[in-house]
Amino acid sequence: MAEIPSTQVTWHEGSVTQAERGKLLKQKGCTLWFTGLSGSGKSTVAMALEQVLVKNGHAAYALDGDNVRFGLNSGPKTLIEARGNSEASAKRFGLGFSAEDREENIRRIGEVAKLFADAGLIAITSFISPYRKDRDAARKIHETNKTGAIPFIEIHVATPIEVCEQRDPKGLYKQARAALASGKGMGFTGVDDPYEPPLKPELTLDCSNKSTQDLVLEVVRMLEHRGVITA
Amino acid sequence: MAEIPSTQVTWHEGSVTQAERGKLLKQKGCTLWFTGLSGSGKSTVAMALEQVLVKNGHAAYALDGDNVRFGLNSGPKTLIEARGNSEASAKRFGLGFSAEDREENIRRIGEVAKLFADAGLIAITSFISPYRKDRDAARKIHETNKTGAIPFIEIHVATPIEVCEQRDPKGLYKQARAALASGKGMGFTGVDDPYEPPLKPELTLDCSNKSTQDLVLEVVRMLEHRGVITA
Repeated sequence: MAEIPSTQVTWHEGSVTQAERGKLLKQKGCTLWFTGLSGSGKSTVAMALEQVLVKNGHAAYALDGDNVRFGLNSGPKTLIEARGNSEASAKRFGLGFSAEDREENIRRIGEVAKLFADAGLIAITSFISPYRKDRDAARKIHETNKTGAIPFIEIHVATPIEVCEQRDPKGLYKQARAALASGKGMGFTGVDDPYEPPLKPELTLDCSNKSTQDLVLEVVRMLEHRGVITA
Repeated sequence: MAEIPSTQVTWHEGSVTQAERGKLLKQKGCTLWFTGLSGSGKSTVAMALEQVLVKNGHAAYALDGDNVRFGLNSGPKTLIEARGNSEASAKRFGLGFSAEDREENIRRIGEVAKLFADAGLIAITSFISPYRKDRDAARKIHETNKTGAIPFIEIHVATPIEVCEQRDPKGLYKQARAALASGKGMGFTGVDDPYEPPLKPELTLDCSNKSTQDLVLEVVRMLEHRGVITA
Protein backbone atom coordinates (compact mmCIF):
# COMPACT_ATOMS: atom_id res chain seq x y z
CA MET A 1 0.00 0.00 0.00
CA ALA A 2 1.40 3.39 -0.97
CA GLU A 3 1.99 6.38 1.25
CA ILE A 4 -1.13 8.35 2.17
CA PRO A 5 -0.97 11.60 0.18
CA SER A 6 -1.50 14.70 2.29
CA THR A 7 -4.55 15.56 0.16
CA GLN A 8 -6.23 12.47 1.59
CA VAL A 9 -5.84 13.70 5.14
CA THR A 10 -9.36 15.07 5.45
CA TRP A 11 -12.34 14.04 7.56
CA HIS A 12 -15.83 15.11 8.53
CA GLU A 13 -17.88 15.47 11.69
CA GLY A 14 -19.20 12.28 13.24
CA SER A 15 -18.09 8.68 13.43
CA VAL A 16 -17.27 6.09 10.84
CA THR A 17 -20.36 3.88 10.59
CA GLN A 18 -20.46 0.17 11.17
CA ALA A 19 -21.52 -0.37 7.55
CA GLU A 20 -18.55 1.65 6.20
CA ARG A 21 -16.15 -0.46 8.23
CA GLY A 22 -17.68 -3.69 7.01
CA LYS A 23 -17.49 -2.48 3.42
CA LEU A 24 -13.75 -1.87 3.80
CA LEU A 25 -13.32 -5.44 5.04
CA LYS A 26 -15.70 -6.85 2.39
CA GLN A 27 -18.01 -8.45 4.93
CA LYS A 28 -20.73 -7.57 7.42
CA GLY A 29 -19.42 -7.07 10.92
CA CYS A 30 -21.36 -9.34 13.28
CA THR A 31 -21.08 -11.48 16.37
CA LEU A 32 -21.31 -15.26 16.29
CA TRP A 33 -22.28 -16.21 19.80
CA PHE A 34 -21.59 -19.91 20.47
CA THR A 35 -23.38 -21.28 23.52
CA GLY A 36 -23.51 -24.80 24.88
CA LEU A 37 -22.50 -27.13 27.67
CA SER A 38 -18.94 -27.83 28.73
CA GLY A 39 -17.60 -30.52 26.38
CA SER A 40 -20.22 -29.79 23.71
CA GLY A 41 -17.53 -29.03 21.16
CA LYS A 42 -18.29 -25.31 20.79
CA SER A 43 -14.70 -24.14 21.19
CA THR A 44 -13.38 -26.71 18.72
CA VAL A 45 -15.83 -25.51 16.08
CA ALA A 46 -15.27 -21.83 16.95
CA MET A 47 -11.47 -22.09 16.69
CA ALA A 48 -11.59 -24.05 13.43
CA LEU A 49 -14.10 -21.58 12.02
CA GLU A 50 -11.90 -18.61 12.94
CA GLN A 51 -8.96 -20.12 11.06
CA VAL A 52 -11.02 -21.01 8.02
CA LEU A 53 -12.44 -17.48 7.81
CA VAL A 54 -9.02 -15.81 8.20
CA LYS A 55 -7.47 -18.18 5.67
CA ASN A 56 -10.15 -17.17 3.20
CA GLY A 57 -9.48 -13.47 3.65
CA HIS A 58 -12.00 -12.55 6.33
CA ALA A 59 -11.18 -10.58 9.44
CA ALA A 60 -12.51 -12.79 12.21
CA TYR A 61 -11.50 -12.85 15.84
CA ALA A 62 -12.35 -15.36 18.52
CA LEU A 63 -12.84 -14.36 22.14
CA ASP A 64 -12.43 -17.32 24.42
CA GLY A 65 -11.27 -18.33 27.86
CA ASP A 66 -7.65 -18.06 26.75
CA ASN A 67 -7.59 -14.44 25.75
CA VAL A 68 -10.36 -13.12 27.99
CA ARG A 69 -10.17 -14.99 31.28
CA PHE A 70 -6.45 -14.24 31.59
CA GLY A 71 -6.78 -10.62 30.53
CA LEU A 72 -9.86 -8.46 30.58
CA ASN A 73 -11.70 -10.77 32.97
CA SER A 74 -8.82 -11.97 35.13
CA GLY A 75 -9.48 -13.46 38.52
CA PRO A 76 -8.31 -11.69 41.69
CA LYS A 77 -5.13 -13.78 41.88
CA THR A 78 -3.96 -12.78 38.39
CA LEU A 79 -4.77 -9.15 39.10
CA ILE A 80 -2.51 -9.21 42.14
CA GLU A 81 0.31 -11.36 40.78
CA ALA A 82 0.53 -10.32 37.14
CA ARG A 83 -1.01 -6.85 37.19
CA GLY A 84 0.13 -5.55 40.56
CA ASN A 85 -3.35 -4.63 41.81
CA SER A 86 -3.91 -4.06 45.50
CA GLU A 87 -5.76 -6.84 47.27
CA ALA A 88 -8.81 -4.63 47.73
CA SER A 89 -9.12 -3.70 44.06
CA ALA A 90 -8.38 -7.26 42.93
CA LYS A 91 -11.14 -8.52 45.18
CA ARG A 92 -13.54 -5.96 43.79
CA PHE A 93 -12.74 -6.20 40.08
CA GLY A 94 -11.42 -9.74 39.66
CA LEU A 95 -13.95 -12.26 38.40
CA GLY A 96 -14.54 -15.66 39.95
CA PHE A 97 -17.37 -18.11 39.36
CA SER A 98 -20.21 -16.88 41.56
CA ALA A 99 -23.51 -16.11 39.85
CA GLU A 100 -22.87 -12.38 39.76
CA ASP A 101 -19.29 -12.85 38.57
CA ARG A 102 -20.47 -15.07 35.73
CA GLU A 103 -23.03 -12.50 34.74
CA GLU A 104 -20.37 -9.76 34.70
CA ASN A 105 -18.05 -12.05 32.72
CA ILE A 106 -20.68 -12.48 30.01
CA ARG A 107 -21.63 -8.80 30.13
CA ARG A 108 -18.06 -7.69 29.42
CA ILE A 109 -17.65 -10.28 26.67
CA GLY A 110 -20.86 -9.05 25.06
CA GLU A 111 -19.61 -5.46 25.17
CA VAL A 112 -16.22 -6.35 23.68
CA ALA A 113 -17.74 -8.56 20.95
CA LYS A 114 -19.98 -5.63 20.06
CA LEU A 115 -16.95 -3.33 19.71
CA PHE A 116 -15.25 -5.86 17.40
CA ALA A 117 -18.38 -6.26 15.30
CA ASP A 118 -18.79 -2.48 15.23
CA ALA A 119 -15.22 -2.34 13.87
CA GLY A 120 -16.42 -4.55 10.99
CA LEU A 121 -15.00 -7.84 12.19
CA ILE A 122 -16.68 -11.20 12.57
CA ALA A 123 -16.46 -11.60 16.34
CA ILE A 124 -16.70 -15.18 17.56
CA THR A 125 -17.42 -15.87 21.21
CA SER A 126 -17.25 -19.29 22.74
CA PHE A 127 -18.45 -19.49 26.33
CA ILE A 128 -21.01 -21.75 28.04
CA SER A 129 -23.14 -18.63 28.75
CA PRO A 130 -25.89 -20.74 30.32
CA TYR A 131 -28.41 -18.02 31.15
CA ARG A 132 -30.89 -16.76 28.58
CA LYS A 133 -31.08 -13.36 30.27
CA ASP A 134 -27.35 -12.74 29.85
CA ARG A 135 -27.33 -13.80 26.20
CA ASP A 136 -30.39 -11.68 25.50
CA ALA A 137 -28.65 -8.69 27.10
CA ALA A 138 -25.67 -9.24 24.76
CA ARG A 139 -28.06 -9.41 21.81
CA LYS A 140 -29.73 -6.19 22.87
CA ILE A 141 -26.54 -4.12 22.97
CA HIS A 142 -25.78 -5.32 19.43
CA GLU A 143 -29.21 -4.44 18.12
CA THR A 144 -29.13 -0.99 19.70
CA ASN A 145 -25.56 -0.13 18.64
CA LYS A 146 -25.14 3.62 18.07
CA THR A 147 -23.50 3.54 14.65
CA GLY A 148 -25.94 0.92 13.27
CA ALA A 149 -27.60 -2.32 14.38
CA ILE A 150 -25.22 -5.27 14.41
CA PRO A 151 -26.28 -8.84 13.55
CA PHE A 152 -26.10 -11.08 16.60
CA ILE A 153 -26.06 -14.70 15.48
CA GLU A 154 -26.65 -17.16 18.29
CA ILE A 155 -25.32 -20.63 17.59
CA HIS A 156 -26.55 -23.28 19.96
CA VAL A 157 -24.16 -26.19 20.19
CA ALA A 158 -26.81 -28.63 21.30
CA THR A 159 -24.76 -31.74 21.96
CA PRO A 160 -26.73 -33.85 24.48
CA ILE A 161 -25.37 -33.77 28.01
CA GLU A 162 -24.83 -37.53 28.00
CA VAL A 163 -22.36 -37.13 25.14
CA CYS A 164 -20.65 -34.13 26.79
CA GLU A 165 -20.35 -36.00 30.06
CA GLN A 166 -18.97 -39.09 28.42
CA ARG A 167 -16.29 -37.02 26.65
CA ASP A 168 -15.49 -34.92 29.72
CA PRO A 169 -12.17 -33.70 28.25
CA LYS A 170 -11.12 -31.82 31.40
CA GLY A 171 -12.65 -34.22 33.95
CA LEU A 172 -15.00 -31.47 35.10
CA TYR A 173 -18.22 -33.50 35.05
CA LYS A 174 -16.56 -36.18 37.14
CA GLN A 175 -15.50 -33.55 39.65
CA ALA A 176 -18.96 -31.98 39.68
CA ARG A 177 -20.72 -35.34 40.24
CA ALA A 178 -18.33 -36.18 43.07
CA ALA A 179 -18.89 -32.78 44.69
CA LEU A 180 -22.65 -33.25 44.39
CA ALA A 181 -22.51 -36.75 45.86
CA SER A 182 -20.52 -35.46 48.82
CA GLY A 183 -23.30 -32.93 49.45
CA LYS A 184 -21.30 -29.81 48.58
CA GLY A 185 -22.00 -29.19 44.92
CA MET A 186 -20.05 -26.75 42.77
CA GLY A 187 -22.76 -25.10 40.68
CA PHE A 188 -21.62 -26.82 37.51
CA THR A 189 -23.74 -26.18 34.43
CA GLY A 190 -25.80 -29.24 33.51
CA VAL A 191 -25.10 -31.00 36.80
CA ASP A 192 -26.24 -28.71 39.59
CA ASP A 193 -26.75 -25.44 37.75
CA PRO A 194 -29.20 -24.96 34.87
CA TYR A 195 -28.41 -24.56 31.19
CA GLU A 196 -31.15 -22.54 29.55
CA PRO A 197 -31.15 -23.40 25.82
CA PRO A 198 -31.82 -20.56 23.37
CA LEU A 199 -35.47 -20.35 22.31
CA LYS A 200 -34.78 -19.08 18.81
CA PRO A 201 -31.10 -19.53 17.97
CA GLU A 202 -30.05 -18.51 14.47
CA LEU A 203 -28.38 -21.92 14.12
CA THR A 204 -28.34 -25.17 16.04
CA LEU A 205 -25.45 -27.60 15.83
CA ASP A 206 -25.20 -31.02 17.37
CA CYS A 207 -21.60 -32.13 17.62
CA SER A 208 -22.30 -35.74 18.65
CA ASN A 209 -22.17 -37.34 15.23
CA LYS A 210 -20.66 -34.87 12.81
CA SER A 211 -17.09 -34.06 11.92
CA THR A 212 -15.71 -30.64 12.83
CA GLN A 213 -15.25 -30.02 9.13
CA ASP A 214 -18.94 -30.60 8.40
CA LEU A 215 -19.95 -28.37 11.29
CA VAL A 216 -17.65 -25.54 10.21
CA LEU A 217 -19.03 -25.85 6.70
CA GLU A 218 -22.55 -25.58 8.09
CA VAL A 219 -21.67 -22.29 9.79
CA VAL A 220 -19.86 -20.98 6.70
CA ARG A 221 -22.88 -21.72 4.48
CA MET A 222 -25.15 -19.98 6.97
CA LEU A 223 -22.88 -16.89 6.90
CA GLU A 224 -22.94 -16.90 3.10
CA HIS A 225 -26.71 -17.33 3.10
CA ARG A 226 -27.07 -14.30 5.41
CA GLY A 227 -24.76 -12.20 3.28
CA VAL A 228 -22.20 -11.86 6.07
CA ILE A 229 -19.29 -13.05 3.95
CA THR A 230 -20.42 -12.60 0.36
CA ALA A 231 -19.92 -9.29 -1.36
CA MET B 1 -15.87 -12.34 -2.59
CA ALA B 2 -16.84 -15.81 -3.81
CA GLU B 3 -18.22 -18.67 -1.82
CA ILE B 4 -15.69 -20.54 0.30
CA PRO B 5 -15.14 -23.90 -1.43
CA SER B 6 -15.43 -26.86 0.90
CA THR B 7 -11.85 -27.82 0.07
CA GLN B 8 -10.77 -24.63 1.84
CA VAL B 9 -12.44 -25.66 5.07
CA THR B 10 -9.29 -26.96 6.73
CA TRP B 11 -7.27 -25.77 9.73
CA HIS B 12 -4.39 -26.74 11.93
CA GLU B 13 -3.62 -26.91 15.64
CA GLY B 14 -2.94 -23.62 17.38
CA SER B 15 -4.01 -20.04 16.94
CA VAL B 16 -3.79 -17.62 14.08
CA THR B 17 -0.80 -15.38 14.86
CA GLN B 18 -0.88 -11.62 15.22
CA ALA B 19 1.43 -11.30 12.20
CA GLU B 20 -0.86 -13.43 9.98
CA ARG B 21 -3.80 -11.24 10.87
CA GLY B 22 -1.89 -8.05 10.10
CA LYS B 23 -0.80 -9.48 6.77
CA LEU B 24 -4.40 -10.10 5.78
CA LEU B 25 -5.22 -6.47 6.58
CA LYS B 26 -2.02 -5.20 4.91
CA GLN B 27 -0.79 -3.42 8.04
CA LYS B 28 0.84 -4.11 11.39
CA GLY B 29 -1.67 -4.42 14.19
CA CYS B 30 -0.70 -2.01 16.96
CA THR B 31 -2.07 0.31 19.61
CA LEU B 32 -1.79 4.08 19.40
CA TRP B 33 -2.16 5.25 22.97
CA PHE B 34 -3.01 8.97 23.13
CA THR B 35 -2.44 10.53 26.54
CA GLY B 36 -2.78 14.12 27.65
CA LEU B 37 -4.72 16.62 29.74
CA SER B 38 -8.41 17.31 29.37
CA GLY B 39 -8.78 19.85 26.55
CA SER B 40 -5.36 19.01 25.08
CA GLY B 41 -6.95 18.06 21.76
CA LYS B 42 -6.15 14.35 21.91
CA SER B 43 -9.64 13.15 21.03
CA THR B 44 -9.95 15.56 18.12
CA VAL B 45 -6.71 14.23 16.63
CA ALA B 46 -7.59 10.61 17.43
CA MET B 47 -11.03 10.81 15.80
CA ALA B 48 -9.70 12.58 12.70
CA LEU B 49 -6.88 10.05 12.45
CA GLU B 50 -9.30 7.12 12.66
CA GLN B 51 -11.34 8.48 9.76
CA VAL B 52 -8.28 9.22 7.64
CA LEU B 53 -6.94 5.70 8.17
CA VAL B 54 -10.28 4.02 7.38
CA LYS B 55 -10.78 6.22 4.33
CA ASN B 56 -7.38 5.10 3.07
CA GLY B 57 -8.22 1.44 3.44
CA HIS B 58 -6.85 0.70 6.91
CA ALA B 59 -8.76 -1.13 9.61
CA ALA B 60 -8.52 1.26 12.55
CA TYR B 61 -10.78 1.53 15.55
CA ALA B 62 -10.94 4.21 18.21
CA LEU B 63 -11.81 3.43 21.80
CA ASP B 64 -12.99 6.51 23.61
CA GLY B 65 -15.31 7.71 26.32
CA ASP B 66 -18.30 7.36 24.00
CA ASN B 67 -18.03 3.67 23.24
CA VAL B 68 -16.28 2.50 26.42
CA ARG B 69 -17.65 4.55 29.32
CA PHE B 70 -21.22 3.77 28.26
CA GLY B 71 -20.56 0.12 27.60
CA LEU B 72 -17.73 -2.01 28.89
CA ASN B 73 -16.86 0.44 31.67
CA SER B 74 -20.33 1.72 32.55
CA GLY B 75 -20.92 3.40 35.85
CA PRO B 76 -23.20 1.82 38.48
CA LYS B 77 -26.20 3.89 37.38
CA THR B 78 -26.03 2.69 33.76
CA LEU B 79 -25.58 -0.90 34.93
CA ILE B 80 -28.78 -0.70 36.92
CA GLU B 81 -30.89 1.35 34.50
CA ALA B 82 -29.79 0.10 31.11
CA ARG B 83 -28.42 -3.34 31.90
CA GLY B 84 -30.72 -4.46 34.68
CA ASN B 85 -27.94 -5.27 37.17
CA SER B 86 -28.77 -5.64 40.84
CA GLU B 87 -27.66 -2.73 43.01
CA ALA B 88 -25.02 -4.86 44.67
CA SER B 89 -23.38 -6.02 41.43
CA ALA B 90 -23.64 -2.52 39.90
CA LYS B 91 -21.86 -1.11 42.93
CA ARG B 92 -19.15 -3.72 42.65
CA PHE B 93 -18.54 -3.71 38.90
CA GLY B 94 -19.59 -0.21 37.84
CA LEU B 95 -16.74 2.26 37.44
CA GLY B 96 -16.73 5.76 38.91
CA PHE B 97 -13.85 8.20 39.26
CA SER B 98 -12.03 7.11 42.41
CA ALA B 99 -8.32 6.30 42.07
CA GLU B 100 -8.93 2.54 41.95
CA ASP B 101 -11.82 2.92 39.52
CA ARG B 102 -9.66 4.99 37.18
CA GLU B 103 -6.94 2.39 37.33
CA GLU B 104 -9.43 -0.38 36.48
CA ASN B 105 -10.85 1.78 33.67
CA ILE B 106 -7.41 2.09 32.08
CA ARG B 107 -6.60 -1.58 32.75
CA ARG B 108 -9.68 -2.78 30.84
CA ILE B 109 -9.04 -0.33 28.00
CA GLY B 110 -5.46 -1.62 27.74
CA GLU B 111 -6.71 -5.21 27.58
CA VAL B 112 -9.31 -4.45 24.92
CA ALA B 113 -6.87 -2.38 22.82
CA LYS B 114 -4.50 -5.34 22.96
CA LEU B 115 -7.22 -7.68 21.67
CA PHE B 116 -7.93 -5.32 18.76
CA ALA B 117 -4.23 -5.00 17.94
CA ASP B 118 -3.89 -8.77 18.22
CA ALA B 119 -6.70 -9.02 15.68
CA GLY B 120 -4.51 -6.99 13.30
CA LEU B 121 -6.24 -3.64 13.71
CA ILE B 122 -4.78 -0.25 14.49
CA ALA B 123 -6.36 0.36 17.89
CA ILE B 124 -6.54 4.02 18.91
CA THR B 125 -7.20 4.92 22.52
CA SER B 126 -7.88 8.43 23.69
CA PHE B 127 -8.05 8.84 27.46
CA ILE B 128 -6.29 11.22 29.85
CA SER B 129 -4.60 8.18 31.46
CA PRO B 130 -2.60 10.41 33.82
CA TYR B 131 -0.58 7.78 35.67
CA ARG B 132 2.65 6.40 34.26
CA LYS B 133 2.18 3.10 36.08
CA ASP B 134 -1.15 2.42 34.36
CA ARG B 135 0.18 3.28 30.90
CA ASP B 136 3.26 1.14 31.49
CA ALA B 137 1.03 -1.77 32.50
CA ALA B 138 -0.88 -1.39 29.22
CA ARG B 139 2.43 -1.35 27.34
CA LYS B 140 3.55 -4.50 29.12
CA ILE B 141 0.52 -6.59 28.16
CA HIS B 142 1.13 -5.61 24.53
CA GLU B 143 4.78 -6.53 24.63
CA THR B 144 4.09 -9.88 26.25
CA ASN B 145 1.15 -10.83 24.01
CA LYS B 146 0.93 -14.61 23.52
CA THR B 147 0.67 -14.77 19.74
CA GLY B 148 3.47 -12.20 19.20
CA ALA B 149 4.65 -8.88 20.67
CA ILE B 150 2.45 -5.96 19.65
CA PRO B 151 3.78 -2.43 19.04
CA PHE B 152 2.53 -0.01 21.69
CA ILE B 153 2.92 3.53 20.42
CA GLU B 154 2.48 6.15 23.11
CA ILE B 155 1.53 9.57 21.77
CA HIS B 156 1.83 12.36 24.28
CA VAL B 157 -0.45 15.25 23.46
CA ALA B 158 1.63 17.79 25.32
CA THR B 159 -0.48 20.91 25.00
CA PRO B 160 0.45 23.18 27.94
CA ILE B 161 -2.09 23.28 30.72
CA GLU B 162 -2.57 27.06 30.29
CA VAL B 163 -3.84 26.44 26.76
CA CYS B 164 -6.05 23.51 27.85
CA GLU B 165 -7.52 25.56 30.65
CA GLN B 166 -8.18 28.53 28.45
CA ARG B 167 -10.05 26.34 25.94
CA ASP B 168 -11.93 24.40 28.64
CA PRO B 169 -14.49 23.07 26.13
CA LYS B 170 -16.62 21.35 28.77
CA GLY B 171 -16.13 23.91 31.55
CA LEU B 172 -14.38 21.27 33.65
CA TYR B 173 -11.35 23.33 34.66
CA LYS B 174 -13.63 26.11 35.84
CA GLN B 175 -15.56 23.60 37.92
CA ALA B 176 -12.37 22.09 39.32
CA ARG B 177 -10.90 25.49 40.27
CA ALA B 178 -14.15 26.46 41.98
CA ALA B 179 -14.24 23.18 43.88
CA LEU B 180 -10.63 23.67 44.94
CA ALA B 181 -11.25 27.25 46.06
CA SER B 182 -14.20 26.10 48.16
CA GLY B 183 -11.87 23.67 49.90
CA LYS B 184 -13.46 20.46 48.56
CA GLY B 185 -11.47 19.63 45.44
CA MET B 186 -12.55 17.03 42.88
CA GLY B 187 -9.27 15.30 42.02
CA PHE B 188 -9.15 16.83 38.56
CA THR B 189 -6.05 16.04 36.52
CA GLY B 190 -3.75 19.06 36.25
CA VAL B 191 -5.59 21.01 38.94
CA ASP B 192 -5.59 18.90 42.08
CA ASP B 193 -4.48 15.54 40.74
CA PRO B 194 -1.14 14.93 39.00
CA TYR B 195 -0.54 14.31 35.33
CA GLU B 196 2.61 12.23 34.91
CA PRO B 197 3.98 12.87 31.41
CA PRO B 198 5.46 9.89 29.52
CA LEU B 199 9.25 9.67 29.90
CA LYS B 200 9.87 8.18 26.45
CA PRO B 201 6.76 8.56 24.31
CA GLU B 202 7.05 7.34 20.74
CA LEU B 203 5.65 10.68 19.59
CA THR B 204 4.95 14.06 21.17
CA LEU B 205 2.35 16.43 19.79
CA ASP B 206 1.59 19.94 20.95
CA CYS B 207 -1.85 21.01 19.78
CA SER B 208 -1.54 24.68 20.80
CA ASN B 209 -0.38 26.10 17.48
CA LYS B 210 -0.91 23.45 14.81
CA SER B 211 -3.94 22.55 12.74
CA THR B 212 -5.59 19.18 13.28
CA GLN B 213 -4.68 18.33 9.69
CA ASP B 214 -0.97 18.92 10.34
CA LEU B 215 -1.10 16.87 13.52
CA VAL B 216 -2.87 13.94 11.84
CA LEU B 217 -0.32 14.08 9.06
CA GLU B 218 2.46 13.93 11.66
CA VAL B 219 0.98 10.72 13.10
CA VAL B 220 0.41 9.22 9.64
CA ARG B 221 4.04 9.87 8.63
CA MET B 222 5.24 8.29 11.87
CA LEU B 223 3.10 5.19 11.16
CA GLU B 224 4.55 4.95 7.66
CA HIS B 225 8.07 5.43 9.00
CA ARG B 226 7.53 2.56 11.47
CA GLY B 227 6.13 0.32 8.75
CA VAL B 228 2.73 0.10 10.43
CA ILE B 229 0.82 1.14 7.33
CA THR B 230 3.14 0.53 4.43
CA ALA B 231 3.24 -2.89 2.82
